[in-house]
Amino acid sequence: MASAVTPPRGMRDFLPREKATREHALAVIRRSYSAHGFDEIETPVMEDIQRLHSGLGGDNEKLSFSVLKRGIEKSDLETAVDADDPQTLADLGLRFDLTVPLARFYATHRAELPGVFRSVQIAPVWRAERPQKGRYRQFMQCDIDIIGDASALAEVELISATLSTLDALGLQGCTVRINDRRLLIGMLELFGFSTESHDAVLIVIDKIDKVGTSGVVDELRAKAPELAEATDALEAFFLRPQDRMMRPFGHDAIAHALPEGIDAALVAELASIGDALDADRIRFDPFLVRGMGYYTGTIFEIAHPDFSFSLGGGGRYDGMIGRFLGTDVPAVGFSIGFERIVDLVDLPDQKAADSVALLHDASTPAVLLQSLKTELIASGSRVRLERKAKNAKLQLERLAAAGFTRVATVQSGDEGVDDLRFRALGQ
Amino acid sequence: MASAVTPPRGMRDFLPREKATREHALAVIRRSYSAHGFDEIETPVMEDIQRLHSGLGGDNEKLSFSVLKRGIEKSDLETAVDADDPQTLADLGLRFDLTVPLARFYATHRAELPGVFRSVQIAPVWRAERPQKGRYRQFMQCDIDIIGDASALAEVELISATLSTLDALGLQGCTVRINDRRLLIGMLELFGFSTESHDAVLIVIDKIDKVGTSGVVDELRAKAPELAEATDALEAFFLRPQDRMMRPFGHDAIAHALPEGIDAALVAELASIGDALDADRIRFDPFLVRGMGYYTGTIFEIAHPDFSFSLGGGGRYDGMIGRFLGTDVPAVGFSIGFERIVDLVDLPDQKAADSVALLHDASTPAVLLQSLKTELIASGSRVRLERKAKNAKLQLERLAAAGFTRVATVQSGDEGVDDLRFRALGQ
Repeated sequence: MASAVTPPRGMRDFLPREKATREHALAVIRRSYSAHGFDEIETPVMEDIQRLHSGLGGDNEKLSFSVLKRGIEKSDLETAVDADDPQTLADLGLRFDLTVPLARFYATHRAELPGVFRSVQIAPVWRAERPQKGRYRQFMQCDIDIIGDASALAEVELISATLSTLDALGLQGCTVRINDRRLLIGMLELFGFSTESHDAVLIVIDKIDKVGTSGVVDELRAKAPELAEATDALEAFFLRPQDRMMRPFGHDAIAHALPEGIDAALVAELASIGDALDADRIRFDPFLVRGMGYYTGTIFEIAHPDFSFSLGGGGRYDGMIGRFLGTDVPAVGFSIGFERIVDLVDLPDQKAADSVALLHDASTPAVLLQSLKTELIASGSRVRLERKAKNAKLQLERLAAAGFTRVATVQSGDEGVDDLRFRALGQ
Repeated sequence: MASAVTPPRGMRDFLPREKATREHALAVIRRSYSAHGFDEIETPVMEDIQRLHSGLGGDNEKLSFSVLKRGIEKSDLETAVDADDPQTLADLGLRFDLTVPLARFYATHRAELPGVFRSVQIAPVWRAERPQKGRYRQFMQCDIDIIGDASALAEVELISATLSTLDALGLQGCTVRINDRRLLIGMLELFGFSTESHDAVLIVIDKIDKVGTSGVVDELRAKAPELAEATDALEAFFLRPQDRMMRPFGHDAIAHALPEGIDAALVAELASIGDALDADRIRFDPFLVRGMGYYTGTIFEIAHPDFSFSLGGGGRYDGMIGRFLGTDVPAVGFSIGFERIVDLVDLPDQKAADSVALLHDASTPAVLLQSLKTELIASGSRVRLERKAKNAKLQLERLAAAGFTRVATVQSGDEGVDDLRFRALGQ
């Protein structure tokens, strides 16, 4: 077994340095969201399998890991007629996102929560993705959600908290692309796409960042010849003469980017979100789709000029909480892509804190080492005892790389920290 | 579904206040262990099922949750002849402790780790326990381990780090009960218990805190009449005239508490651990057993005068890492019982930080609310916007209970924080 001892496929170990970076980023995120008035909660990693497979998770449901029923009997296997259906063998599943558990949590605890509940969840989720670079089977999600506020103030608070948090992480320059599902649908209707075709057309439009507007038109023509007339209208809209001046986010920018005849009230509603935010950091994107089918209103995504991929996203999902609660409650959420972001975050200089390595040999009395260590910890240092290595140079380099700032060799005659002769460790 | 929306059986949600207490306790623990020179790592929640069922986890293996193979076929069900064996249907399992994953992690990454590796793991584990008060199916473990140091200095560092951490959590007065498995076995041999009987006899002796010495003797007589002679010798030892003077931990205390003829070198080795620690906080307990079969040397448990249960424990398990690595490596670990401890920890006064609630009504412009919020956050406050409730008294009480220190009602004419009239919120 010694030859291939690895974590399970698609899952990662974190070595001390990576773990420290992650914990640092999580602490920054927690502090920022807390300042913005959000309350952190936690739910178990598992939920009842029926809840996970209730249709709220879209394609992610298919990627979920199921947990085998305990005490399964031979007869259970025989009656498990449908091997494709995990529910015949499993009663629990690992969550594939934090939104389904949040909806369940809110339904369980509503009476104990404030009327408008601002939640933070920072926790791992699991999906049986085909492993590839940047895609993991266990990864962290950081979600903030506001439940119980139907007004645009909820979007304002979410976007402002998210941008502040990204700034605090040192990711200056992020902007939020924003759209409204209802405007998207309104556009499709104006172009003449039939109601039944909307979902399929949105899946194609969702690829616009990759294939461009002409790629979208080509795919629609190839896949859905019956939608030719509507596709022509869409193409004409793509090719219309455009006022190229970048307008700051607001009513004019939105109205100019949409076809004539779009619902003016929806435009005004979306524009009002920008009024309360820094207009330079929000951009209206009429063709932003966001995959999840549960969005009912605004949708948003984080863009950074240096990266082609999105750093997070979210939207309003007013219908979802009601699925567990039995009564509709407005809700809107914003998730930052922790696994993408953490690779871009620099760990602040660990050497800001005093980190001391005490070198010793096998004969140095434990009582002396322990008393020196205790004395140094009490004065605020981080302390590591280390047996002197044969290769002193290599040992000092390794200690410096691990963030230690000074080192001393303990002599048997030493009685206290004052007797130690410290050397500073270089970069 | 709305009538019984709960987390899975034996698993818990954490509401904001509980979650804040837990995160506070975790931050204290992380800071303390880091000061003592330990490095935090993380492993995935799942491991390959064969590794989890390799006999290292003792009874906990039977309590482990298995994760259904993905893409299971009808033919898999038909060949799953042994329904009791989860490995026919599952390829992964949720970890039931942090020690098996640590051994696997060390085997995977040994080349990248220091020669003596001091690890911290703070993470959840899962066991299908019968749910009861204080027993959960998902719970946190906080483990520190030192791998690669065969000397007693490792025990000294672990015990000192653990006691410091408990002090930092405000749990003053904890002591560590300590024993050595080899002394236990030596005693059994001196009393005449046959080698084959040792495991069974230790299981009975492990109950001594609950049933007393006479209970132990009675159970051995009833269950194992063939061990009558050895049981008589054990009883005589229990009943021997004892020097009741409490001796500080050290050679004399240990030697006096053991039968004559015990291995003097082992006594000296155990005594040396105490030399480097505060003797008032360690107590030799010759009948401390610790359940896990993988312990090979020292074993320890945290006691607190106010609680009958142990607050954590650990020991040396020199044989275990070798199971994955193929070569033996000394290892010793100490785990604090987070779920027990967190209930005893007081959250420090949240009001130390300025927490502001801004009350408003539906007509207050979002742009005004957002700018006031941003200004207050920038000056270091936590800020929550809240719609004015009909019952103002109840609302203020709830905000005070949630840790808010001051409140202001925003008027439409306000332009900045200076225009707000704050009221302090009482206890």
